[in-house]
Amino acid sequence: VQGANKKQIQFADQKQEFNKRPTKIGRRSLSRSISQSSTDSYGSAASYTDSSDDETSPRDKQQKNSKGNGDFCIKNIKQADFGRREIEIAEQEMPALMALRKRAQGEKPLAGAKVVGCTHITAQTAVLMETLSALGAQCRWAACNIYSTQNEVAAALAEGGFSVFAWKGESEDDFWWCIDRCVNLEGWQPNMILDDGGDLTHWIYKKYPNMFKKIKGIVEESVTGVHRLYQLSKAGKLCVPAMNVNDSVTKQKFDNLYCCRESILDGLKRTTDVMFGGKQVVVCGYGEVGKGCCAALKAMGSIVYVTEIDPICALQACMDGFRLVKLNEVIRQVDIVITCTGNKNVVVREYLDRMKNGCIVCNMGHSNTEIDVASLRTPELTWERVRSQVDHVIWPDGKRIVLLAEGRLLNLSCSTVPTFVLSITATTQALALIELYNAPEGRYKQDVYLLPKKMDEYVASLHLPTFDAHLTELSDEQAKYLGLNKNGPFKPNYYR
Amino acid sequence: VQGANKKQIQFADQKQEFNKRPTKIGRRSLSRSISQSSTDSYGSAASYTDSSDDETSPRDKQQKNSKGNGDFCIKNIKQADFGRREIEIAEQEMPALMALRKRAQGEKPLAGAKVVGCTHITAQTAVLMETLSALGAQCRWAACNIYSTQNEVAAALAEGGFSVFAWKGESEDDFWWCIDRCVNLEGWQPNMILDDGGDLTHWIYKKYPNMFKKIKGIVEESVTGVHRLYQLSKAGKLCVPAMNVNDSVTKQKFDNLYCCRESILDGLKRTTDVMFGGKQVVVCGYGEVGKGCCAALKAMGSIVYVTEIDPICALQACMDGFRLVKLNEVIRQVDIVITCTGNKNVVVREYLDRMKNGCIVCNMGHSNTEIDVASLRTPELTWERVRSQVDHVIWPDGKRIVLLAEGRLLNLSCSTVPTFVLSITATTQALALIELYNAPEGRYKQDVYLLPKKMDEYVASLHLPTFDAHLTELSDEQAKYLGLNKNGPFKPNYYR
Amino acid sequence: VQGANKKQIQFADQKQEFNKRPTKIGRRSLSRSISQSSTDSYGSAASYTDSSDDETSPRDKQQKNSKGNGDFCIKNIKQADFGRREIEIAEQEMPALMALRKRAQGEKPLAGAKVVGCTHITAQTAVLMETLSALGAQCRWAACNIYSTQNEVAAALAEGGFSVFAWKGESEDDFWWCIDRCVNLEGWQPNMILDDGGDLTHWIYKKYPNMFKKIKGIVEESVTGVHRLYQLSKAGKLCVPAMNVNDSVTKQKFDNLYCCRESILDGLKRTTDVMFGGKQVVVCGYGEVGKGCCAALKAMGSIVYVTEIDPICALQACMDGFRLVKLNEVIRQVDIVITCTGNKNVVVREYLDRMKNGCIVCNMGHSNTEIDVASLRTPELTWERVRSQVDHVIWPDGKRIVLLAEGRLLNLSCSTVPTFVLSITATTQALALIELYNAPEGRYKQDVYLLPKKMDEYVASLHLPTFDAHLTELSDEQAKYLGLNKNGPFKPNYYR
Amino acid sequence: VQGANKKQIQFADQKQEFNKRPTKIGRRSLSRSISQSSTDSYGSAASYTDSSDDETSPRDKQQKNSKGNGDFCIKNIKQADFGRREIEIAEQEMPALMALRKRAQGEKPLAGAKVVGCTHITAQTAVLMETLSALGAQCRWAACNIYSTQNEVAAALAEGGFSVFAWKGESEDDFWWCIDRCVNLEGWQPNMILDDGGDLTHWIYKKYPNMFKKIKGIVEESVTGVHRLYQLSKAGKLCVPAMNVNDSVTKQKFDNLYCCRESILDGLKRTTDVMFGGKQVVVCGYGEVGKGCCAALKAMGSIVYVTEIDPICALQACMDGFRLVKLNEVIRQVDIVITCTGNKNVVVREYLDRMKNGCIVCNMGHSNTEIDVASLRTPELTWERVRSQVDHVIWPDGKRIVLLAEGRLLNLSCSTVPTFVLSITATTQALALIELYNAPEGRYKQDVYLLPKKMDEYVASLHLPTFDAHLTELSDEQAKYLGLNKNGPFKPNYYR
Repeated sequence: VQGANKKQIQFADQKQEFNKRPTKIGRRSLSRSISQSSTDSYGSAASYTDSSDDETSPRDKQQKNSKGNGDFCIKNIKQADFGRREIEIAEQEMPALMALRKRAQGEKPLAGAKVVGCTHITAQTAVLMETLSALGAQCRWAACNIYSTQNEVAAALAEGGFSVFAWKGESEDDFWWCIDRCVNLEGWQPNMILDDGGDLTHWIYKKYPNMFKKIKGIVEESVTGVHRLYQLSKAGKLCVPAMNVNDSVTKQKFDNLYCCRESILDGLKRTTDVMFGGKQVVVCGYGEVGKGCCAALKAMGSIVYVTEIDPICALQACMDGFRLVKLNEVIRQVDIVITCTGNKNVVVREYLDRMKNGCIVCNMGHSNTEIDVASLRTPELTWERVRSQVDHVIWPDGKRIVLLAEGRLLNLSCSTVPTFVLSITATTQALALIELYNAPEGRYKQDVYLLPKKMDEYVASLHLPTFDAHLTELSDEQAKYLGLNKNGPFKPNYYR
Repeated sequence: VQGANKKQIQFADQKQEFNKRPTKIGRRSLSRSISQSSTDSYGSAASYTDSSDDETSPRDKQQKNSKGNGDFCIKNIKQADFGRREIEIAEQEMPALMALRKRAQGEKPLAGAKVVGCTHITAQTAVLMETLSALGAQCRWAACNIYSTQNEVAAALAEGGFSVFAWKGESEDDFWWCIDRCVNLEGWQPNMILDDGGDLTHWIYKKYPNMFKKIKGIVEESVTGVHRLYQLSKAGKLCVPAMNVNDSVTKQKFDNLYCCRESILDGLKRTTDVMFGGKQVVVCGYGEVGKGCCAALKAMGSIVYVTEIDPICALQACMDGFRLVKLNEVIRQVDIVITCTGNKNVVVREYLDRMKNGCIVCNMGHSNTEIDVASLRTPELTWERVRSQVDHVIWPDGKRIVLLAEGRLLNLSCSTVPTFVLSITATTQALALIELYNAPEGRYKQDVYLLPKKMDEYVASLHLPTFDAHLTELSDEQAKYLGLNKNGPFKPNYYR
Repeated sequence: VQGANKKQIQFADQKQEFNKRPTKIGRRSLSRSISQSSTDSYGSAASYTDSSDDETSPRDKQQKNSKGNGDFCIKNIKQADFGRREIEIAEQEMPALMALRKRAQGEKPLAGAKVVGCTHITAQTAVLMETLSALGAQCRWAACNIYSTQNEVAAALAEGGFSVFAWKGESEDDFWWCIDRCVNLEGWQPNMILDDGGDLTHWIYKKYPNMFKKIKGIVEESVTGVHRLYQLSKAGKLCVPAMNVNDSVTKQKFDNLYCCRESILDGLKRTTDVMFGGKQVVVCGYGEVGKGCCAALKAMGSIVYVTEIDPICALQACMDGFRLVKLNEVIRQVDIVITCTGNKNVVVREYLDRMKNGCIVCNMGHSNTEIDVASLRTPELTWERVRSQVDHVIWPDGKRIVLLAEGRLLNLSCSTVPTFVLSITATTQALALIELYNAPEGRYKQDVYLLPKKMDEYVASLHLPTFDAHLTELSDEQAKYLGLNKNGPFKPNYYR
Repeated sequence: VQGANKKQIQFADQKQEFNKRPTKIGRRSLSRSISQSSTDSYGSAASYTDSSDDETSPRDKQQKNSKGNGDFCIKNIKQADFGRREIEIAEQEMPALMALRKRAQGEKPLAGAKVVGCTHITAQTAVLMETLSALGAQCRWAACNIYSTQNEVAAALAEGGFSVFAWKGESEDDFWWCIDRCVNLEGWQPNMILDDGGDLTHWIYKKYPNMFKKIKGIVEESVTGVHRLYQLSKAGKLCVPAMNVNDSVTKQKFDNLYCCRESILDGLKRTTDVMFGGKQVVVCGYGEVGKGCCAALKAMGSIVYVTEIDPICALQACMDGFRLVKLNEVIRQVDIVITCTGNKNVVVREYLDRMKNGCIVCNMGHSNTEIDVASLRTPELTWERVRSQVDHVIWPDGKRIVLLAEGRLLNLSCSTVPTFVLSITATTQALALIELYNAPEGRYKQDVYLLPKKMDEYVASLHLPTFDAHLTELSDEQAKYLGLNKNGPFKPNYYR
């Protein structure tokens, strides 16, 4: 969740939640797991190979890879070659993981690690998995989303010897079956969990609580999953250390400020072909996401207004050159409305009624609550789907507003996430696994931790070569003067 | 042609050219007619309706609109409703034409005009045609490109009573047949020509030279067509006044500087999902197109180098904060290479050989000559098509460069053109027709003219309401002080 | 200290330090107290009135204000009118303090407060003092710097009934005499301390330790003073609560990022008239100060390189579009070198030797240690003072570098600080006094505190009207959803 | 004149104008001769040496330089050393002239030229004069402004053998006496004129019309002088070719767009110390000057509104991200008003009455007519001079506006002009002299010419090394393809 306040995400009674959840997607839309969007970006690629009319469920198939190994369940092992190419392309943009592989050639920091994972299964994840493997780990993997699996990548992984249980278009039942196949195996028990959303962790808690005796730690990627962990921790039920990857600086800054700076333009262009120059835009919220959106639109020649509730962010907006307004002051005149607050009902029907004809409305912030889309489902308004992810909502007088992604996150629905960003996340995950796996007894208790600052800095340093960037080193004298270790950490934990 | 020097475009002997031309598309790729790209942007929309298996040639069909009129030849009249909606959407972004319609309700400045047109047939063109009609003109229309017709728009026009002869996927023979059907009609003879590329003009010159006796003028949109006209003029063969719409300030600035500022980002993102932040980019050429590209990339956090041959543009690049280099100084280190020179062989094999792995190469400038793509068609290099418009060219050592649109114009191939830009062009076309049609005898000779500065300013003023922009008016005293007419023109002709 | 690490500032044994301190200025140059620079900006104004040949020490004069009150010691009471105008001008840019005065008309939150202060005595301070008075406080005041007092402002304050003991050009002995006169008064004992640098606090600790029994708290403004307090606290010797004003978000962001963004340009222009466009600049350090400098110079068309030791800031520099280099990679080519590290010996003689002719070198970061100026004091180099604060250092081969402010802080020496920035500081000081004075028993222990987030937000909110900025308020429902109080605080403490 | 329309500058009957002109300064304020401002920037430097109490008129002194030459009339030959250092410093920033000197070592393109000049006499002019001398010319020189002469530079020139007649603080009579001494010399007759303002040309026309028989051409720098020439030309009285240096691209772009981008910030900061961040600013006029001002202020975080009369510039403002308004829409809310129109009475009393308290008003455009300053000279308003060039105008209700430079050009009055900009002008002057002096008979008629495009490009190319900028050269094949000469010119004349 970008710019979202975490407190309100309730960790409902788990059994109940499981039962009433109508679709997997519905619930996961709460999670701003960045890799989710890779689904969209690779959807077209995947569709080349998925056009087969093979309707047989993977669960009903018997497949083996070229070495005769059949410990996996995927759509079609024959797609492995195509998947391999996708993985190779991704490798080029994930230099940090490749560097980790190289550095680990001598020592294998994950030797003996048995990692069970539940994430989106994409080319980028494959690079991560193969890195873990190169570092010494055994891996078993399921998908954290029933739609996001790239089948050909899963095939390449299976061909490469990974036990993958995932395909695009799983049913709810398939979903849990796949997870179960990862952990419920004679003679193999995981000692590390890599989770994205908390479902895998949840399943083990429910079905195999004893497994935690051997588990050294959990690495969790998503906002949702992290909060489930904090809830467990509060309730005194967390029985192993957990690493919160989501809140590391590097990830946050990239994910929110820098990435949104680019994806707001991309998302708007792909859906509406709007010209930015001269457009009047109001951005609700001036947190990191809002700052990124505003900077990009201003740079492209839009006139940007900002709304804020927090006086400090408001003052920042002023100093950055944006008029700070209340939404009702500008709602009649703006061409584009973008929500980035993490709040709910920021754009309500009253505002939608007053927007001018052709106004574009979208959400970059949080879930699908910022725009009160439900209020538009009334008989007098006509909805017209004009493109994928683009609806015209038409008032009786003919006025139409252009609603993007039905108020869901624009950048997950309508733009892609650069592999470079996923690389930062994946590297952080790998380092978190290494840290937890190798930490001396007692360093971590049964609690939720942020990655140590120094390792956060290490993730950053592994990505500098991509930019041919050269870091300066402190002299001994300087380090002493500053009271710092020459190798960091260089800043306090709260530095952003 | 963006940033191109016009002199080199030869007006070959026409007969020969006609005969040897292998494909319509091939030749027209010389023309940077902006509307060409609308093909791409609406391709997906069109495909909804084109999926029919109707393989019958429109020439073999008998169709009538709901009023029983059959003087047209299009794909399928039944698509008219869908096309009408596309037109209505376009109307919302073409305020100037709509304003012209309103202002012309009393007087009909084109009353009696018989306009024959040959342009891309898109929703935007339809708005123009219906405006001409509202102003009093009769219209007959063919497509200037065998692929660019939006069939459903053509259907809506036919349903509305326009004599349209065009469909997507014409053969070479169809192309000229359609043009001929527009002009070769018993009892109807055009008195105005609206052309885009010069083919219609060419056809009339060849087949019906006597028609020019009644023709009051030609309005030409494209670089190619304009040059054909200048050649005719030089050769003393131009027998009516012609208006060069292409070089009006408003069009040039929008088309090149402002539009490219947006489309460079859009084109790169849609094809490669590249993250701009921190990327090193070299932009070859710092004319209007280069200025737009550089400004956008710098704003998105790229580090931009510029190459130039002209010391004045070079000094501008310096003052704007770009390192001015020779290509060989940076070619090994850059992540993206963009050509905007209007020249040929700017990026030659030698440079391609030295680029680093993963380097993206694309052209925003001119035709497809700036990157020496032919030099990459050698046996030791492997080409891999990874997406539409994206090729990986792979060296024997595994290095791959990412070539976009095979070196053709990126923004025409891989991004869309906002309707607002097309609105400026279409308005200029409409005003040019009005000016030529109503000009008193003798104002225009048999020559090629630019739109009078004052009308150029009028086009601009018609687009200001879109931005809720309020123009200041000179007082009498001020006008006198400045020696200007209160209504303009306000600047010398050369003002950019 | 901008961007400085605090740990290295040693709190030497106090007696010793006091004795060996050679000049007041020398030591205080350690302190990046923003108000110090107001000295410079108002120096010229002050000089109008100081040109009098009155060499009599204020300590030897008997002066009374127009009401017959003589409890002050200043240069010349006759300058009061001129000082009053300066104060009135400052009031216009300090809207928050004026607002505090208004809001406090009913309740007097400082009724009974006896504040003893030791700060720069400038027009801005006068606005603060008169605000404290309006809120109910009695004030006695000395200068924290022997050169920074605006004599005419001191006169206006004395005329207004304030007991001020300060003049421009105090001796060391005068300095402590003035402080002593503030506190050592029959029948009056302070209960609040407002300090800038820690000297007043130090004096009371040394001379009147019993006074602390009645003192409710200390508000400290400077980095130096804050560290003295932390040292006292660590040593268990802090006997009252203290408020660290220096590290509040609002102050930090304004002081460093936003203010330096403007003052780097101002400082360079006033000293060198350099044209920024096209210049190559290296900025050492990409903390808040470096970020501000880089943003401004990039915007003005300079080509900016960055050096960093911290990989996270380095990655930010990359994403913001700056080449990250080591100093030796660019030192031969750059036109301007700016240090913003908070470190020492960042630009050493070796680099200075390699700079090109005309290179400008200056420091925005910390003290005067970043550039190794001492290394330039060698016989073979010639120093030429070409303007105030500008030296040409000339190598034997004729090469000259342009050294600004002898390596001291450029923005304090060569540019002014907008009153608006001082307003934020002064408002924070006032609120800190109110908070400490009114806090219920036990809220604050004998420790050093940051201003509560909520009050920091309040400072920001008081400055929004200057920008005609309108804050949005949470609805009850939204506040509940976010789990926030409608009145804040809105962000965690570490939010920047 | 920045952004000014030239037509309104009347060339009054010359005799009359001469007689009635009340002060030299008054009239010359019409001229936006960039070098005028060097007066301001070096005023302080000059004042060091001018503090002498020497009240003797230079005309009454007998001075000789160290070689016994006395053919000059200046303030004090003893200041020569100080002046020499100023010249040496200027040389460092005028690389193009230094390059010209080197290239001309073999051939002397001005051998035999006898140049009489009338310009501001500053260090930059001295570099020009010494360059002309190195190219073979003899020079005699007077000042074009009675206040702008740097006495110590004049001394250095006299010491170096130049016949200079100029000092700071000439009377009207002195002014013409000096000019006369330059031309009225036994046995020496000029064959080239370098003028700035047209006074020298005017004098020769009046007093020595026969001299034009030997004169090969006039090079004129200022707007005023250029218009006098155009008037002469129109009247058929221009009897030699004249070169209009003022309108060359390089000069215009630097002088207006790039230079104003920097000087607007500098001028505002030096006079008011205003913080730009968050300020609301209205810029009247979006020509080159307005574009520069807007870009800078936007970059510094101001919110900028634009007013325009020309729809094309208005549309550019929109696309660049500025709200286009009428002045009355924003006049109550803005913090700063800047005029850049070249028009008169743009900010009239009615607007001044409605500005808010503290509003800053200044002029970057033209002369002193844009702000109706005269309307503020009414009894109910109080003027208070608060700093040099800064007046507070106070309304009866206490509202004050801050008027800068009494409405004259801010950047000439309150900021400096970088030597680099003057370098471009001076180089253009030198090349214009060379061109006219060496042009074959008949190339130039008795008319006013712009510098040939190719030489304009040459000026630019001579300044590229300052930026370490490397120009790309066309290959033969490319030049042929573009139809260009490999050495330029590369763009049409109207290219900006």
